[in-house]
Amino acid sequence: MNSSMDIIRGIGEGSIRAIAKALSEVENGSSGSTDILDYLFSRQQGFTLGITGPPGAGKSTLVDRMITRYRSIDNSVGVIAVDPSSPFTGGALLGDRIRMQSHATDSKVFIRSMGSRGHLGGLSGATRDASLVLSAAGYNPVIIETVGVGQAEVEVAELADITLLVLVPGLGDDVQSMKAGIMEIGDIIVLNKSDRSGIEQLENYVKASLDLMPPGLKRPEVIRVSATNGGGLEDLWCAMDRLAATHSEKDKLLRSAVKTMNQILRENGVLFSEKLLELEYNGREAVEKLILAGQLTPYAVGRKLLERAERMFEHNGSK
Amino acid sequence: MNSSMDIIRGIGEGSIRAIAKALSEVENGSSGSTDILDYLFSRQQGFTLGITGPPGAGKSTLVDRMITRYRSIDNSVGVIAVDPSSPFTGGALLGDRIRMQSHATDSKVFIRSMGSRGHLGGLSGATRDASLVLSAAGYNPVIIETVGVGQAEVEVAELADITLLVLVPGLGDDVQSMKAGIMEIGDIIVLNKSDRSGIEQLENYVKASLDLMPPGLKRPEVIRVSATNGGGLEDLWCAMDRLAATHSEKDKLLRSAVKTMNQILRENGVLFSEKLLELEYNGREAVEKLILAGQLTPYAVGRKLLERAERMFEHNGSK
Repeated sequence: MNSSMDIIRGIGEGSIRAIAKALSEVENGSSGSTDILDYLFSRQQGFTLGITGPPGAGKSTLVDRMITRYRSIDNSVGVIAVDPSSPFTGGALLGDRIRMQSHATDSKVFIRSMGSRGHLGGLSGATRDASLVLSAAGYNPVIIETVGVGQAEVEVAELADITLLVLVPGLGDDVQSMKAGIMEIGDIIVLNKSDRSGIEQLENYVKASLDLMPPGLKRPEVIRVSATNGGGLEDLWCAMDRLAATHSEKDKLLRSAVKTMNQILRENGVLFSEKLLELEYNGREAVEKLILAGQLTPYAVGRKLLERAERMFEHNGSK
Repeated sequence: MNSSMDIIRGIGEGSIRAIAKALSEVENGSSGSTDILDYLFSRQQGFTLGITGPPGAGKSTLVDRMITRYRSIDNSVGVIAVDPSSPFTGGALLGDRIRMQSHATDSKVFIRSMGSRGHLGGLSGATRDASLVLSAAGYNPVIIETVGVGQAEVEVAELADITLLVLVPGLGDDVQSMKAGIMEIGDIIVLNKSDRSGIEQLENYVKASLDLMPPGLKRPEVIRVSATNGGGLEDLWCAMDRLAATHSEKDKLLRSAVKTMNQILRENGVLFSEKLLELEYNGREAVEKLILAGQLTPYAVGRKLLERAERMFEHNGSK
């Protein structure tokens, strides 16, 4: 199982080993991964589900419930657990894994904690490519669970066909003031722990915030659940099915294609910059020396490289 | 006040208008901003202080206390409030501004909510450049407060000379499992709301997590405070002063210079990619059409552009 073709063939045959191998290639940003992804791109099926929300909102418990639900209608389920807050551990979420343990022995449930190791696109690039692999391998849905509510999580969640924002009562003022912006990224806003006091105020607050949304944007649905005791979950499944039905396979593919291209352009850009640095200054070490000696500022380096690139593009523009 | 030279001169004279103008240029990523930043780079003084932590941790109240403290020793204080979670509002934090209102009429306190508008480097690039402007204008410290705990916030906080991670009791399991990674980015871990029950367990948990840190990394100090009633704040100020004293001006400048260069390389890379797309496919519109028609995948585009770039670099390598 070493060549890209072997891996692609293995994924087509549903080999867990091939899938795991593809995910490693993707995570490490190895050169073969582009071939694999290029081939699998048009073989994606089903939908991806992004779950975001502040820490403590009960996302893992909700994901656990979702797995049970989709398994009950005989779908295979992929879960990618993303932890952008952890620059050191590469995102292994011990706690979450324990919570999803009830599915650990089910071969139709594939759970993977994501890191970004060598991936040029960092965690969101690695997650994007990993969800492509799982989707092409027949997992439906692929659930992408993020921890936290920063820009990185928003980016990850935006990759998904359907996005759930999970909130709970009692997370304090900061959360309230954050939501004004972040809640606009959810297709469904899930108010979890509906048995807690404060759920009424939270729902009022959320609805008032949604009233402030700029016209033209689609208003998310707001659904109360209790992931722990099961209340409201049927309503949530219905809402998700309804949303999933509105996207055709082709729509989803195309919508994500342009987004994916933009990300890849960004990732490649890093390589181009390094190359230019090599040309203009004989590489990183030399330029760092000049900067540390106070003879050059980082801003001057940036300007110089842009000028160099412009000259190159002028020369090459004709061909 | 239109040319870069006017702005640079104005900042030297302490003109609030010039500072505000420079911050706008930086936020919009205008071409003049590079000149301003290049010039101001070696004029930075004092230190920058990054404050991060989950929503609800009381960061704004703590910042408010810090402003009072530094004003009492007659320093000017700059505050940059960063909200990466808000892709739509551009990061205006109404709640936080209200909390810091007691300083609104103090001309030696400059508070700015950051957006990233046209800045190629997004929010962390804009924040980096804004803190440079405030630092060169004599604000000391420049406090960078982020909302949330994702990768974006980590990036922002890493720019600072000293980083505080603020935690509070009772934010739930997810927070606990997150901390293992994120707490390694703080020079000081502040346990806020020390009058709450659960502070004991939190401190034990934090200390146990720190024991798991890889050897060689510097262990952060752990300090209990109550930002609301003032308890423990003197200890915190001492710890901060001690840390500030260990960094020489030159050290800080150089340490941040290489980091800044890497970010600028990334930002420029985006421009290079766009240019290549123009060359290879006659621009974005044409390539999007091919992708939407299913004749090309985003991964194939990426590979093609890399090949094109390689050919260009080969031709230009000699010159």
